[in-house]
This record gives sequence, structure tokens and C-alpha cells, in this order.
Amino acid sequence: MKKVFIYDTTLRDGTQAEGVSVSVEDKLRITEKLDDFGIHYIEGGWPGSNPKDDEYFKKVKNLRLKNAKIAAFGSTRRAYLRVEDDPLIQNLIKAETPVITIFGKAWDMHVTEALKTTLENNLEMVYDTVRYLKAHTDEVVFIGEHFFDGYKSNPDYAYAVMKTAQEAGADFLVLADTNGGTLPIEIESIIKQVKEKGLDGKLGIHAHNDSDTAVWNSITAVLNGAVQVHGTINGFGERCGNANLCSIIPNLSLKLGYETIPEESIRRLKELSNFVADIVNLPVPKNMPFVGDSAFAHKGGVHASAVLKNPKLYEHINPELVGNRRKILVSDLAGKSNIIYKARELGIEIDEKDPRITELVQEIKRLENYGYHYEAAEASLELLIRKHLGMLKKYFDLDAYRVLIARRYTDKEPVSEATVRIKIDNHYEHTASLGYGPVNALDRALKKALVEIYPSLSEVELIDYKVRIINESAGTAAKIRVLVESKDRERKWGTVGVSDNVIEASWQAVVDSFIYKLVKDGV
Amino acid sequence: MKKVFIYDTTLRDGTQAEGVSVSVEDKLRITEKLDDFGIHYIEGGWPGSNPKDDEYFKKVKNLRLKNAKIAAFGSTRRAYLRVEDDPLIQNLIKAETPVITIFGKAWDMHVTEALKTTLENNLEMVYDTVRYLKAHTDEVVFIGEHFFDGYKSNPDYAYAVMKTAQEAGADFLVLADTNGGTLPIEIESIIKQVKEKGLDGKLGIHAHNDSDTAVWNSITAVLNGAVQVHGTINGFGERCGNANLCSIIPNLSLKLGYETIPEESIRRLKELSNFVADIVNLPVPKNMPFVGDSAFAHKGGVHASAVLKNPKLYEHINPELVGNRRKILVSDLAGKSNIIYKARELGIEIDEKDPRITELVQEIKRLENYGYHYEAAEASLELLIRKHLGMLKKYFDLDAYRVLIARRYTDKEPVSEATVRIKIDNHYEHTASLGYGPVNALDRALKKALVEIYPSLSEVELIDYKVRIINESAGTAAKIRVLVESKDRERKWGTVGVSDNVIEASWQAVVDSFIYKLVKDGV
Repeated sequence: MKKVFIYDTTLRDGTQAEGVSVSVEDKLRITEKLDDFGIHYIEGGWPGSNPKDDEYFKKVKNLRLKNAKIAAFGSTRRAYLRVEDDPLIQNLIKAETPVITIFGKAWDMHVTEALKTTLENNLEMVYDTVRYLKAHTDEVVFIGEHFFDGYKSNPDYAYAVMKTAQEAGADFLVLADTNGGTLPIEIESIIKQVKEKGLDGKLGIHAHNDSDTAVWNSITAVLNGAVQVHGTINGFGERCGNANLCSIIPNLSLKLGYETIPEESIRRLKELSNFVADIVNLPVPKNMPFVGDSAFAHKGGVHASAVLKNPKLYEHINPELVGNRRKILVSDLAGKSNIIYKARELGIEIDEKDPRITELVQEIKRLENYGYHYEAAEASLELLIRKHLGMLKKYFDLDAYRVLIARRYTDKEPVSEATVRIKIDNHYEHTASLGYGPVNALDRALKKALVEIYPSLSEVELIDYKVRIINESAGTAAKIRVLVESKDRERKWGTVGVSDNVIEASWQAVVDSFIYKLVKDGV
Repeated sequence: MKKVFIYDTTLRDGTQAEGVSVSVEDKLRITEKLDDFGIHYIEGGWPGSNPKDDEYFKKVKNLRLKNAKIAAFGSTRRAYLRVEDDPLIQNLIKAETPVITIFGKAWDMHVTEALKTTLENNLEMVYDTVRYLKAHTDEVVFIGEHFFDGYKSNPDYAYAVMKTAQEAGADFLVLADTNGGTLPIEIESIIKQVKEKGLDGKLGIHAHNDSDTAVWNSITAVLNGAVQVHGTINGFGERCGNANLCSIIPNLSLKLGYETIPEESIRRLKELSNFVADIVNLPVPKNMPFVGDSAFAHKGGVHASAVLKNPKLYEHINPELVGNRRKILVSDLAGKSNIIYKARELGIEIDEKDPRITELVQEIKRLENYGYHYEAAEASLELLIRKHLGMLKKYFDLDAYRVLIARRYTDKEPVSEATVRIKIDNHYEHTASLGYGPVNALDRALKKALVEIYPSLSEVELIDYKVRIINESAGTAAKIRVLVESKDRERKWGTVGVSDNVIEASWQAVVDSFIYKLVKDGV
């Protein structure tokens, strides 16, 4: 099996995505995870560019990595300095990584207009820097920046840049589509040409997704001999992102016979995707191929029953091969078979001919139309099904709640206070709590009111809280869906609430969360 | 120039995306917009499958379309019925569209296991249905469902299905990658083979994005002779979506020399993307190629100044060619040049050497670290810059606000009441308002307090309200960012607020919105 090295730049190129900011701790945790998954190269950052990256390179030396080699990233030396005198180059060496990756200009226009130097000098910069770094580290990866645009502008020069890097001792010669505008046919044609011209080293590909073809650009390069693929987890990065490793790895290994990361790791790909997404706080779109929550979600009523009978007819791969799972959506196109499947999944046996199923289907359609989405709130769905089948105890009743948020100009932050009055059997609990905000106050007040009668509720922790405006065009009068994720020592579960009022929607989701806990504990 | 017909299935296949539900009015508005843009075929729905679709086909006949032909979608006749007796086929004819599109099984396994009929009978179903429909409408589009998987399983049979459709008179023979698992090299190879075998009609391609290659799958088909491309606007659809027309059209027309929709329409592509996204309420991811808000957003400090000097060096196409614009992001990688550029964009002249710029850069970094994001809240950014440069009047001061949300078990919904006390010069306005929820109540109360002194505020409408939890893992104690979009008769603007407390965050965004209005009105 042909082997392809996976080179992850999530921590460097990926962090240039809009809205992304990662701490040193975050970067180290991601490094450990990537290493655990068998990623071959982890580009950790740009030493000397900011204090966080310097701290990262100091601390990463203490990690016991089993698979990955850490790469420090930088550029060729300054045009007017000798390589030994360039502090940026010294920074790269000081990072003491087994791999140093540098990019050099491969597009003549960039050399003259951006660097403001001569084409000849740029070649010397490439040669000097690669040679010097090769003497100070195990592996040097050279990236020809804007390579494909450069080749189209001046093929001989672009080739010369890469060949110079090769002659200086670079271990990998990476061709970058920096602006992301190159199409697969051009990638193929250009790679064939440079190989024919004599670039016979180990080639790599660094693609961006501006033309929506980064994945196939990368794979095309591999099919034409490249052995190192650059990308990020979930494909995030500047503008339209980097090449998405979560699509490239399964395509290469499950469909095209290449060895990338170990098969056991590919079987946990969704876990890696979610992990990185959580840490950088950039959620994975549900419809992301392979690893998205809905990548294997069958909606149309027709499909759902057919899929259950013979998954191969409807799924391009078995979802478990990438750690994902088949989803039968309970939606307004859902039929009875979807509900029965879902109930059984939740451990509730229900007879196919039970007339309550049809009512349940209607009820769910009605609620979904109102705005409830159960896809990420299976606990609320289970409670709904149980309630409908008469399988849900009444643990408590709401008597009243009140939330007050008040700020005087002398206060930096408002005060939030929630009061809750609950009826349990024939007796009332009436208490209050402060909080960081109205929902936090409500959550605490409700728990306070219930925990004496139901002590296990103290184990519930609300860990994730998402607010979605359902019909945004109604402005501040829009309907709101709140999704809450909770956990205890054993499990996690999602609940939902919908209302015009964000407090009421949050209340519903929090109440469902506590009730679900009581149901699961068999209280 | 070679012409490719764009076949839009946003209203049929697209609506199978999770979370999408469109009304008949919505579908008609999208139809008109697609027609306005020069889309050639609009697949409107599946007559007889649900009342909405039937109503659509009745009403669409009243639209004066200039470019597009409406297609009704359905399947080949039932295995056991004659085509004249099949009510589903009659539904197709009753829709009275100039184009009827039907799909037929092209994968032998589907014929035997899903349809439970013989391979021979399936061919008859294809022949009968196409022939019959061709006698009742102008054009018949035949889609070979699961064609590529079918060809890999039984090439002769898959070919026979398409050839049969051709012989029966189908105008287009569309090859569908229904499970989305086919890769571009396979698309190319298979199309070449079927053409060699003798399929010489007008070919089409219908791709799905499960392998993250739908765009290049579609373009590969075109490069190999297909003349009709199926897809959806923004690529939404079941699972991982359909082929994204917003990527396919610019790639084909701006890079590969094919004629698709008129050039003037391509120059408004982002507008079409936003329009559809708004109507179906599925936002366009910022990083979507070509049409995403961040598709041309330059973040790294280095890049920003270089881009401004010579955009061609950093952008694969001129953003205006697709109706998009270059964005210089003000972020924690921002430098002085970004701020100066942004200030000038906002009409504020500022000298490059002004020391306040450095302070402003620090202040913005501090705020961005805290959670403020100005990318979608340029009005708040403008106010910040003005304030920092001493160019912002003090219109009013907050004395206090208070929001009360209360629900008794007898109420279906809570009551939300906001009280606001504002100081304007030396005099106080103190008033209250009810609202749909706490933020709506605050918005109304604040407007009520201000509108006598500042009557133009009555023109402000808050049209969009987004809540983002910044650090979701802190559960209900997370920091919250609120983005508000407002408009008056002339313009739209975005403002932001950040706090632990959703009410306080909303307050900030709403206050900024009103102040921005006053600034723009020169009050």
C-alpha cells in the first residue's frame, strides 16, 4: 500500500481562520490528540511571531509523542541579511523541533513586488536557508508559496525555486496553492510537467479551498506522486479554509488504497473532528462530509425504511468506518418506521400497530413545525415519547418562576436573580438564587428547589448552552430555540426548549434535563 | 463558448436538507429570483407528494418567467401498473410544466431489492414512462438514480437503462451519484466508457457531496461532455448536500470558458446566495467559497497591507466578479494598516502617524480577546473608533434598567417587562414596556424613553438577532455575544454586545444600534 504522510497545520494555518483564537494549553491538547491519532507531522506555529507560539515550542518538548514530529514554521531569510544573521531563522532553530518548515516565494511577481528583491537573490535566499536549516535539524520541509500561480506566470522560475530547495537538501518539496484558485486539471498538469522537468524529490501539496476543490486538488496531487498532504482538521483556515483532512484521509484510505493514519484511528475520525472543533470553538457544520452529524442522516420517509433494510444501497461507506453513525431523522417527512426505530434506540419497546404511534408522529411534526428540533436533543425526545406512552412520572410541577435582571449605571454588570416555586406532591419548595445571567440563575434556583427531595440532581452539570433564533427576520420578537447539553458522572444528554422568550425556552430545556436525569436514575 | 445548462433543484432536492421547510410563497419567490438570474431549469417539486407542491405547480403558471423552464419531478411508473393507469404519472402531467424530470433505477440491486421487480421490467418501466411523458410535455429529463454505483455493479445494465431512456425520447440523460460516494476519476472513466458504448445523447450530471467532491465531480462531467449540471444554491441538500451551483458556475464560467448564466448575473451571485439563504433560513457559512462573507477576508497583518497594494497577488479572482467584496479583518492579528484602512472605509480620515492609532489597535485587541467580534458589527466598530478619536457625541446615559420575566403555572407564556431610566442632558426619561421576551421588552422600552427627544429613532427596526455563546464549555455561565442587525429606510447595520448576561449583552448591542442611527442622521 502506498503511504502518504499527513501534515497537519491546524495549529498554524488553521488558526488564521476568522474567529479562532487558541491558547497554548489548547494547542498542546490538540497536539497530543493529533499524535494519538497517528498524524505524521504537526505544524505547531511560527516561533518568534508571537509569545504564545514561543511558549508552545518550549512546552511541546515535554510531551511524550508516539507518532508525530513537530514542525516549526517560518520563511526564507530576509533578502538583505545573511542566513546566520537573521533572527527569524535563529528563532526557528531555537524552537528545537525535529522538523523545520519554511516557505519561499515561487511566483516571480511576488519576489519583485512583495519582497522587492531580484529573482536571483530569491533563489539564493531559498538555497541558503534550506541548507543552513538542514544542518540544524533532522528534516526540512520547503513550501513553494503560490507555486501554481507562479508556474503559470513563469514556469521556469517556479521550477527553479523548487529545484534549488531540493539541491539545498530539503526533504519535502511542497507545492502550495496559496490563493486557492487552481483547479484539479491544472494541479495534475503542472505536477506532471515539473516531474518531467526533473523535480524528482518527495513532493507535497498544500491546498486552499477558494475554488471549492481543495480536497480533490490534494488527492489529485497524491495520484500524481505527492507523498505529503497538508491540511487542517475540519478544513478550517483563512478565507475558505485549508484542505480538509477529515475528507482527504477517508477518501485516500477507504476508497483509493493509500495508507495514511492507522485504520483504528480512522474509525474514530469523528471524535478527532469534534475534539478540535470544541477546543477552537468552531462548530463542525452538520452537513460536513464523513464527520458531520448529518453526514449519514436520512430524512425522506422513503429512504429511512429502505436504509434500515439494506444500508449499502444508500450509504457510500459504513458510517462506523469514520466513527460516525447513521441517523434516522425524526422530521416532518418522518413516518411511523422512523418513530419505532427511534423508540427502540431509546430502549422503549413499542408495537408497530399501536395507534399511539400515529398520534406521536403527528405530535412530533407539530412540535417540529413550532421549532423544536430533536436531532441534538434526544433526551427531550425520549421524554416526549415516554410521556405520550404514559411512561413518565410526574416529578414536580411548576408553580411559578420569576427572573429579575437589574443594572444601575454604577454597576459594571447586572445582577440576575431567579425565584422558583415548585410543587412536589402536595408540598411547595420556594427558593431563590443569583447567577451569572438569567438562565444560570434559573438553573441554580431550580436545582436548589429540587435537590433536597431529589439529591442525585446535584450530579447534573449543564456543560453546553446554545441559543438559536428560529426566524431571525422577526428581529427581537423572533422565536428562540435553546439546546442544553448536560452531563453527570456517566453520560451526556441534550434537551431543547422553544419560545418567544429566551428565558422560557431555557427553562424548558433545563427542566427536561433534570427530569431526564431522574428517569435515567430510575427515581 | 461551450454552453452548459444549469438545472436547479434547490426547491426539490434542496428542501430535503435537515432543518429546511419552505412555504409555497417562499418557493415562488425563489423561482422568480432564479429565473431573474438566468437559471435554465428550475425543478419545483414532486406533484402529488404533498399539498404544498401541488399548490406550487398551480401558482407557478401565473409567473412571467423570462429564462427558466419549470420541471416537475417524479419517478418511473409503478412496477405493476401501466403508465396510463399510474396516478403518480398523471400527477406529473397535471402539473402542466414544460419539462418533466423522472428518475429511474440504474443499479441492479436497487431494482431487485428496493423495487422488488425484475431487471427487464425496470427497463420497460423506463421506456414506457419516458415515451408516455414525452408525448405530454416539451422536454423529458431522465435521471439514472445511483448510476455510478450501478455502473460499477453491472455496467451493461446501467448503460442499458440510460440507452433505453434515450431511445424512448428523453431529451437529457442525467447520471446521478445519488449516494455521493463516487470520485472524479471514476466519474471521468465511467462517462468515457458509456459514451464509447454508444450513449450519444445530451448528458447531465447530478452529484451529491458525501465525498466532499461534488463540485469537481460535476465539472469533470462537463469537461467530458455533459451539458446539464444539477445542483442547489449554496449546495444545501440531504446529508452532505447537493453540488453547489455557487461554486460550479464561477468555476465553469470565470475559469474554464463555459457559458452558464449571464455574466451580469454572475456578478450578483452573492446576492442570489444570500437571498435563498434568507428565505430557507439556512445561513451561508462565512467561509463558503466565492459567496461566503469571508471568502475574500484577509486576516494576517502581513497579508492585509500587501493585498491593498496589489490584489491580484492574493486573490484568485476579483471578488466583484461574483458580487462579493474584499474584507480586511480587524482582529488580533491586525496591525495599524488594517485600522487605517477600516477607518477610511468608514469615512473617518486619520493620519498614519497619529499615536491614537496604536492605542486603538490595543483597545480592539483587548475587546476582541474579551469576545467582541466586529466582523459582523461594523457599526459598533465605527462607534468605537469615533469614541476613541473624540468624534462621538454623548446622546444619553444609562441610569438603570430592569427586566422582569415571570410565569405562573396558569400562564402559557411568561410576561416580560422592561423598565428603563435614561439621563439626557440633565433630565431623566423613565418608562417601561412589555415585550415578547426580555430583549424585545428592553428594545421597546429604550426606544420609548428616547423617541421624544430623538424622533428619528422610530425609524429603526431590529431585523436580526443572533446569540453566540463564546465559551460554550462553561455551560450556563458562559460569556455571550449578541449581534443585532438593524435597518431604517436607507441602510442596514450591525452591532455587538458581550457579557456573561444575555440581557446586558443585548442591551449593549441595542444601545449601539440606536446611537449609530443618531450618528448617521447627523443628530
